[in-house]
Amino acid sequence: MTQLRLALAQVNATVGDLTANAALVREHAASAAAAGADLVAFPEMVLTGYPVEDLSLRTSFVEASRTAVQQLARDLAADGLGELPVVVGYLDRVTDPETQLDAEAAARAGSGRDERGVVGMPKGLPQNCAAVLHRGQVVARYAKHHLPNYGVFDEFRFFVPGRDLLVARIGGVDVAVVICEDLWQDGGPVERAREAGAELLLVLNGSPWERDKDDTRLALAQRRAAEAGCPLAFLNLVGGQDDLVFDGDSLVVAADGELLARGAQFAEDLLVLDLDLPQNGLDPQALPAGVQHVVVRDRPASPGSKRPAVAVVERERLDPVGEVWAALQLGLGDYVRKNGFRKVALGLSGGIDSALVAAIAVDALGPEAVTGISLPSSYSSEHSRTDADDLAERTGLDYRTIPIAPMVDAFTAGLSDAMKLSPVAEENLQARVRGTTLMALSNSEGHLVLATSNKSELSVGYSTLYGDSVGGYAPLKDVPKMLVWELARWRNAQAEARGEVPPIPENSISKVPSAELRPGQTDQDSLPPYEVLDDMLEHYVVGAQGRSELLAAGFEAEVVDEVVGLVDRAEWKRRQFAPGVKISSVAFGRDRRLPITTHWREQQSR
Amino acid sequence: MTQLRLALAQVNATVGDLTANAALVREHAASAAAAGADLVAFPEMVLTGYPVEDLSLRTSFVEASRTAVQQLARDLAADGLGELPVVVGYLDRVTDPETQLDAEAAARAGSGRDERGVVGMPKGLPQNCAAVLHRGQVVARYAKHHLPNYGVFDEFRFFVPGRDLLVARIGGVDVAVVICEDLWQDGGPVERAREAGAELLLVLNGSPWERDKDDTRLALAQRRAAEAGCPLAFLNLVGGQDDLVFDGDSLVVAADGELLARGAQFAEDLLVLDLDLPQNGLDPQALPAGVQHVVVRDRPASPGSKRPAVAVVERERLDPVGEVWAALQLGLGDYVRKNGFRKVALGLSGGIDSALVAAIAVDALGPEAVTGISLPSSYSSEHSRTDADDLAERTGLDYRTIPIAPMVDAFTAGLSDAMKLSPVAEENLQARVRGTTLMALSNSEGHLVLATSNKSELSVGYSTLYGDSVGGYAPLKDVPKMLVWELARWRNAQAEARGEVPPIPENSISKVPSAELRPGQTDQDSLPPYEVLDDMLEHYVVGAQGRSELLAAGFEAEVVDEVVGLVDRAEWKRRQFAPGVKISSVAFGRDRRLPITTHWREQQSR
Repeated sequence: MTQLRLALAQVNATVGDLTANAALVREHAASAAAAGADLVAFPEMVLTGYPVEDLSLRTSFVEASRTAVQQLARDLAADGLGELPVVVGYLDRVTDPETQLDAEAAARAGSGRDERGVVGMPKGLPQNCAAVLHRGQVVARYAKHHLPNYGVFDEFRFFVPGRDLLVARIGGVDVAVVICEDLWQDGGPVERAREAGAELLLVLNGSPWERDKDDTRLALAQRRAAEAGCPLAFLNLVGGQDDLVFDGDSLVVAADGELLARGAQFAEDLLVLDLDLPQNGLDPQALPAGVQHVVVRDRPASPGSKRPAVAVVERERLDPVGEVWAALQLGLGDYVRKNGFRKVALGLSGGIDSALVAAIAVDALGPEAVTGISLPSSYSSEHSRTDADDLAERTGLDYRTIPIAPMVDAFTAGLSDAMKLSPVAEENLQARVRGTTLMALSNSEGHLVLATSNKSELSVGYSTLYGDSVGGYAPLKDVPKMLVWELARWRNAQAEARGEVPPIPENSISKVPSAELRPGQTDQDSLPPYEVLDDMLEHYVVGAQGRSELLAAGFEAEVVDEVVGLVDRAEWKRRQFAPGVKISSVAFGRDRRLPITTHWREQQSR
Repeated sequence: MTQLRLALAQVNATVGDLTANAALVREHAASAAAAGADLVAFPEMVLTGYPVEDLSLRTSFVEASRTAVQQLARDLAADGLGELPVVVGYLDRVTDPETQLDAEAAARAGSGRDERGVVGMPKGLPQNCAAVLHRGQVVARYAKHHLPNYGVFDEFRFFVPGRDLLVARIGGVDVAVVICEDLWQDGGPVERAREAGAELLLVLNGSPWERDKDDTRLALAQRRAAEAGCPLAFLNLVGGQDDLVFDGDSLVVAADGELLARGAQFAEDLLVLDLDLPQNGLDPQALPAGVQHVVVRDRPASPGSKRPAVAVVERERLDPVGEVWAALQLGLGDYVRKNGFRKVALGLSGGIDSALVAAIAVDALGPEAVTGISLPSSYSSEHSRTDADDLAERTGLDYRTIPIAPMVDAFTAGLSDAMKLSPVAEENLQARVRGTTLMALSNSEGHLVLATSNKSELSVGYSTLYGDSVGGYAPLKDVPKMLVWELARWRNAQAEARGEVPPIPENSISKVPSAELRPGQTDQDSLPPYEVLDDMLEHYVVGAQGRSELLAAGFEAEVVDEVVGLVDRAEWKRRQFAPGVKISSVAFGRDRRLPITTHWREQQSR
């Protein structure tokens, strides 16, 4: 048995910010050293952030990442941390196509097509890599083998797959290092790690949160640990980045599947634990083909004088709705912070969607950073004002009121000579005056505007282009309406349990939903009941089921045709919106596009 | 020698419209039969349209395509065309993973991960296929081997690669059928076609237009014909589809590289020509591994009684600027038609961008389908009105005038209690009142709104979100400013040469560009001269070059830093725009994304 004190640094990296990400590594490496760690690891692409997307095709960025990882090794040594092996994810490239690609790939890499790059290979041959840093140098390197290319992932566009397995001897332990998708593949590097005799499998991840994904990860980690015949450490990024949220929730399991440690959800964390590791007797002279063995430290940091064991750690777990709240709060907060904004603005209608967005924003940024504007029109109900007032009072946000009737009237009068406004045009005018007003505030005071549409509305096109769809971030774009209500009730109950004022007015939760763009209007004039709509959307949009599958799943033909018609028509509406724009149906790692076109109608499949 | 009368049907298919696309095939097959063809071929994915994107992941759509190709075979027979072999592109799927995928792929296809599909394989195992239809049946099938996944292509997401080569004996000739990217790959199916003894290489394409791509294609076809040792027919789609334009320009070359025929550019065409083909002596009993040989017709349609040869065809070629004009006209026209619009609207500022868009729209749709609205503010110059009037008179479009000062004043007054408007906010207000006005027309009368921003402006963020960026289609989004002027002069010269009235007012071409959002403003107050800007953007955005490469290319450091700063800041501006939206920098098959993020600044690479 060898004992290894392992530190997993679950940090919040920012795409493109090499300097800040390197500083994050140095800071957490220092903490790990202070805790007596023999090894500290950081997540997939920690140095560049994940997802880098097209940045991987810019030579200057790849070279900057290569330079930064070398500099980081030197800086760690200068910090006095040179003896501590540090594993970091970063962006590298194939430097020697002849030997580092397999024969077929090398042949393709040699057949340049044009300035867009090499046929079948991303330009510049970038790779998603892990490096082991020690004594001021990069002493070993691993390139991800399996590149996910579904859902939110497009890694075939951005990376060249690696081929060799890395086993690094650290503190006398043979550690196999793999990256994210490598773990999900049957017959992938895990099998080779066992063949090679690895004693610990370290997996660096940039694994976005999805609802209920956590248990999938644990079950997978347990299965792979058994296959690898050694403990497995699953280390994940944390933080919001663009339209993804990484939830952390790193975990360590023993070879027999026992959960040894689990990190915080939706927050940075440094997990430190002692592992007792059997010696699997890896023989560097008799390794399977394609395994690189590198000796970093051939013995524990303090051989013979074992320190007191660090306790097994498990953080408090969030409940399912609490997870969604945490994801929304972190996603919004990081989008604002990482894009250099300091405050947000939104229209407050008195309805549940804007109330929920306001409450999330206040949790993420504090009330002083959130401006809510009541924008009543001549069709607005009395309660649209009073419920907005109530919300403002409960949350303490910056509250303003701007009646929009004068601007709407100016349009109605100004356009009357040139066109006859249709009823729909009149409804949309109100929403667009509100959007223009919010953008005037944004331009004048620097707010990021938040759009308040939920996933149910967006899927069926129940919103106004350039109106309520205005905004740089739409916190609810992947939250169906039924879940909107559930989140509001959950948050209020949390507040009550803590003896605080519930942020969301009860009337906003209980009243009948309405866009209030004409007198007496309700959502259900145009849409099926939300419990039916949301269930159908889950099957039709997210599950990509066809009409016959929907009928087989028990939906009534009439409802199927109504909802399918609405979703397909919404796609047509989006054709009127902004050059080349496709609305994403997703925040959280589910399907990326609404897979509908103007001409294919699911009704045709009858 | 065997003689084969080959018909290539270069048609304009619509994504998702299986019914209309099948009708297109039947119509052109009838024409080919009337011309005495022994074989008629249609482009890649003609039955479904290309690109289908996420539709390939919908089971119901894949099944509809599979059903449609069978139905098409029966319908052709019912049309009396059953004896004519017809080759069509369509969407199919792997039906038997065990035998149709290679061992590694089959192993992966067996390891389901979750409802999003199989690890490493698109859900449902869709394939980009060609079918040979004869006597009411699908008699042979080929699945594309090489899947492009760069630039505008994402085929690794959407298709499973094929493995076997198809050689179909048609009219006594052994025809190898491959699809698009298969031709670009060194060591791809072309080599195997030669080994198999193919006598004609038929390539079905969905190959988007790029500037100067035509010559690349001809040179490639000549090289591959030599490698295949037989004539090569390169058949391409035509038409606009979403943000791509397919230019047709199909071509046939002899084994020695001689150009035998070339189809129309940017228009449907049916190329019919007689090929004298040597018999390469393919032996069905001695084929290389992985080659499927299917006998469709073992002899010519009219053996012994050769018909008079059809003349070699070559259509008139467009000049380089004429190609751009044709692409813009076809792209706009098809976007409007394929999305079910009948008319378009745009704001006319008197400037060159809106004048050019109006002229393109009038060419594409006719003057009665184009509404131009002059939207003068209190800062608009006299010539902004008179030049717009002049354009309207020259083109005959539907012309209206709506002064925006009353709406702008209503905003200024209505917002004054709640905020202090910044100068930029005041400028943007004007643009947003214009956008709202155009959308009111769209909602009332059904116009598609056209955005008039050019690529130079969009790249540096010199436009107003929800203002002049409003619109469902931006014809100039991939046209840099210098090319805007060149196109205007080209179109006017064409008109003059034909004795027609030039559509674009000379003053719109010659005056100093200005957004006219404050008194005396010109573009060059904020931007470098356009000849410098455009050149830099070509290197920095399209070519993805870094700072050191730009300096090495001879740009001055000051200009590099200015433009790079503008482009990077524009990416930040886009973060304020619409949930999850990434602006495409491309119409025509160049780079797909502006590869910049908020945190990576090219200036850092100093």
